[in-house]
Amino acid sequence: MGEPAGIGGDITLKAWTLRGDSRLPPFFVLDDPARLAALAAALGLAVPVQAVASPAEAAALFDRALPVLPVELNIPAVAGRPDPANGAAVIASIDRAVALVQVGQAAAVVTNPIQKSSLYAAGFRHPGHTEYLAHLAGLTDEPIMMLAAADLRVVPVTVHVSVRDAVDQLTAAAIIHAGRVTAAALVRDFGIARPRLAVAGLNPHAGEGGAMGREEIDVIAPAIAVLRAEGIDATGPRPPDTMFHAAARRGYDAALCMYHDQALIPVKTVDFDGGVNITLGLPFVRTSPDHGTALDIAGSGAANPTSLIAALKTAERMAGNRRAG
Amino acid sequence: MGEPAGIGGDITLKAWTLRGDSRLPPFFVLDDPARLAALAAALGLAVPVQAVASPAEAAALFDRALPVLPVELNIPAVAGRPDPANGAAVIASIDRAVALVQVGQAAAVVTNPIQKSSLYAAGFRHPGHTEYLAHLAGLTDEPIMMLAAADLRVVPVTVHVSVRDAVDQLTAAAIIHAGRVTAAALVRDFGIARPRLAVAGLNPHAGEGGAMGREEIDVIAPAIAVLRAEGIDATGPRPPDTMFHAAARRGYDAALCMYHDQALIPVKTVDFDGGVNITLGLPFVRTSPDHGTALDIAGSGAANPTSLIAALKTAERMAGNRRAG
Repeated sequence: MGEPAGIGGDITLKAWTLRGDSRLPPFFVLDDPARLAALAAALGLAVPVQAVASPAEAAALFDRALPVLPVELNIPAVAGRPDPANGAAVIASIDRAVALVQVGQAAAVVTNPIQKSSLYAAGFRHPGHTEYLAHLAGLTDEPIMMLAAADLRVVPVTVHVSVRDAVDQLTAAAIIHAGRVTAAALVRDFGIARPRLAVAGLNPHAGEGGAMGREEIDVIAPAIAVLRAEGIDATGPRPPDTMFHAAARRGYDAALCMYHDQALIPVKTVDFDGGVNITLGLPFVRTSPDHGTALDIAGSGAANPTSLIAALKTAERMAGNRRAG
Repeated sequence: MGEPAGIGGDITLKAWTLRGDSRLPPFFVLDDPARLAALAAALGLAVPVQAVASPAEAAALFDRALPVLPVELNIPAVAGRPDPANGAAVIASIDRAVALVQVGQAAAVVTNPIQKSSLYAAGFRHPGHTEYLAHLAGLTDEPIMMLAAADLRVVPVTVHVSVRDAVDQLTAAAIIHAGRVTAAALVRDFGIARPRLAVAGLNPHAGEGGAMGREEIDVIAPAIAVLRAEGIDATGPRPPDTMFHAAARRGYDAALCMYHDQALIPVKTVDFDGGVNITLGLPFVRTSPDHGTALDIAGSGAANPTSLIAALKTAERMAGNRRAG
């Protein structure tokens, strides 16, 4: 479901209408069937919304209706106006999705964007979606975020911190952890037998031998040496500005980036609409569209389902690779 | 000329052979005619190299030969092996180019890449090409670097410093200076009557209201306010990761970026070969290919002239706009 006042419902309904052209895997929604039916009518989308009692029932139905495993809202959702009163329902949707994937009744979890502020107001105590999923999975290690576009996968080693804090917090241990989790996921979830990791420098020209910063010498190169000693094909530190053009991208399977925008600028520049957010290191497959709740356009029909569609297809491929592995 | 042991000669000869297809403006080279003739022969390029005594002679000749205003080397240049003994000739080539453009005998200066280390060994005392040109022009303000690709112009406010130093050195004054120089250049050199500047944030999501860094609030927004009060159409601070995709790029004429890779990653990701380095704020037009001396491929025939060709055409357009303005 995600935040019911956001565009989650809009893009879910649109994705279903495109299920044939997009060759989508069958999916079901953990949401309020009445609100989705009303939203479909308001948007003029011919989507028969059908409440179901189980995932098994959902699969058989998917071709002719959008299957919804009911999660009740406390109060009606108003597009653009998140209400903490529905926070419990948002969380229940996540909890049930995880429970179903853990018992094998779903192949993967795909999460629509949440509005953290209203969850916090409702008592939610986690920095975000990913951390909550890690908590539900009983994970002690930090999960790793990957952003994947058509021909570029990036993994930021530091994520939602200022640039100054990213520099302060960058450690060899964090790079090594991200490298291990990424390499393992490329094998298990992406079916790449011998994944190649391109490790970015932090500084311009990768520091130019220490002339523009020493992190490459003191932190990043030693981390790469550890990864290589473990048999992981990690190379770098590479000059950040010359590693993301089309020809360079063909030389690696994922780029390990030192800070948020070093990863996000290239991926959103080359594929603004189709990027997918993937959590690596969880015991189950989890993907998500690479955008927020877009409260300003929720309910208007303007929301673009491309990223959700990519998230659904990526989840299917990853789950298939896990089964085959 | 640039560094005679680098790819400057290679790309200059190749550019001349493509003068028709690329619709290049007539240009002449300040270099050693004998070395260029020998290089053309070694590369198997049919380029008649012709020494000339003046720019006027060069223009008439350009269609059928590569005009060269002789600058003598001290010792023969060896591809891939810069020698400080030729440092004086490299500097003489720059000096004469500036002298010619200052008296109106050339419309613009286009510089091939230099090898700073060998110039330093020869007594050169400037951090780089740009600063030396500013010195020759008698400039007291710092010139501003712009990188221009087909549909994206970026201006880094801080340039060749580590990420940590970029954060430390970022000031409202530097942003204001870069904004003023860029806006004036977009009018004068690019013929844009009312240029739109997109100002990037420093931090992820432009700091998210101070949650991920306060530079947007304390430094960048106040600088934008000053620029706007002067009538400059500057907007931001924008989230850095969502401002460089194709649709976003159509909304502004130049992006003001807070650090080197924030500017260079998008421009080199979207147009790796065709980017042009432009110095704004000089009394004359100066462009340069957006790459280095590439010593490892000098003399091999592998060098790509695309960026030099773009630099020549950009210089022509800028000079034309200045004349028309």
